[in-house]
Amino acid sequence: MKYLHTMVRVTDLPTSLRFYVDALGLEVLRQYDNPAGRFTLVYLAAPGDSEAQVELTYNYDPEVYTGGRNFGHLAYAVENIYATCERLQQHGVTISRPPRDGRMAFVRSPDGISVELLQAGHALPPAEPWVSMPNVGSW
Amino acid sequence: MKYLHTMVRVTDLPTSLRFYVDALGLEVLRQYDNPAGRFTLVYLAAPGDSEAQVELTYNYDPEVYTGGRNFGHLAYAVENIYATCERLQQHGVTISRPPRDGRMAFVRSPDGISVELLQAGHALPPAEPWVSMPNVGSW
Repeated sequence: MKYLHTMVRVTDLPTSLRFYVDALGLEVLRQYDNPAGRFTLVYLAAPGDSEAQVELTYNYDPEVYTGGRNFGHLAYAVENIYATCERLQQHGVTISRPPRDGRMAFVRSPDGISVELLQAGHALPPAEPWVSMPNVGSW
Repeated sequence: MKYLHTMVRVTDLPTSLRFYVDALGLEVLRQYDNPAGRFTLVYLAAPGDSEAQVELTYNYDPEVYTGGRNFGHLAYAVENIYATCERLQQHGVTISRPPRDGRMAFVRSPDGISVELLQAGHALPPAEPWVSMPNVGSW
């Protein structure tokens, strides 16, 4: 038995790829277009960790994708949580829970999927601007 | 960067462990009880695939965990999809999408988290009772 992926539905594929790839740092492994079925699937994973994937499902027929409380978040370890949060900010992503402790942060995807970032190994020394940054919304 | 886990919230821990462990076949890696914070976390993974985890969050204060459409499902490859579905049934789990094609099935956790099962390698030859089994609900 083996974990394959977590599937999330996305309203807009280019916007989602800017979040998951450009801002968060995942890479695209493959894309499957099915015009007859009116959907496209994109498989993503952290670089060098291609076995544990995220599957983005884009349905051509529009739907509003609200969140539910039974799903919590996707979690990734990152090499430098400050660098990751800075890159997310540069792409317009709000840091919902800034890494004030040098260890943990939360952001949300364009469709409201909560993503937890954890500093790999030991926490980094607390540093500005993160220490003074308040929480924004929920995550 | 590395995938750590998908977190899901659970209403009842023993009921959820019967589903994820006894019926689905994941194993418990560790449990973290935090009575002061009024929550317990349980980390699960497929046997031999301990790096890609599911984190169950049990909050002591009751809440109804509805689902949302932005989250789709968790997906696992299994060695024998018929044996897995039979074990799920024996634990009272409804097979929402039976493996009529010997390849794919869907079930739901007690809190409505959709789980996709995919036959590892080639599809199995179609076989009863699965071939004649209708879909039940959504997944």
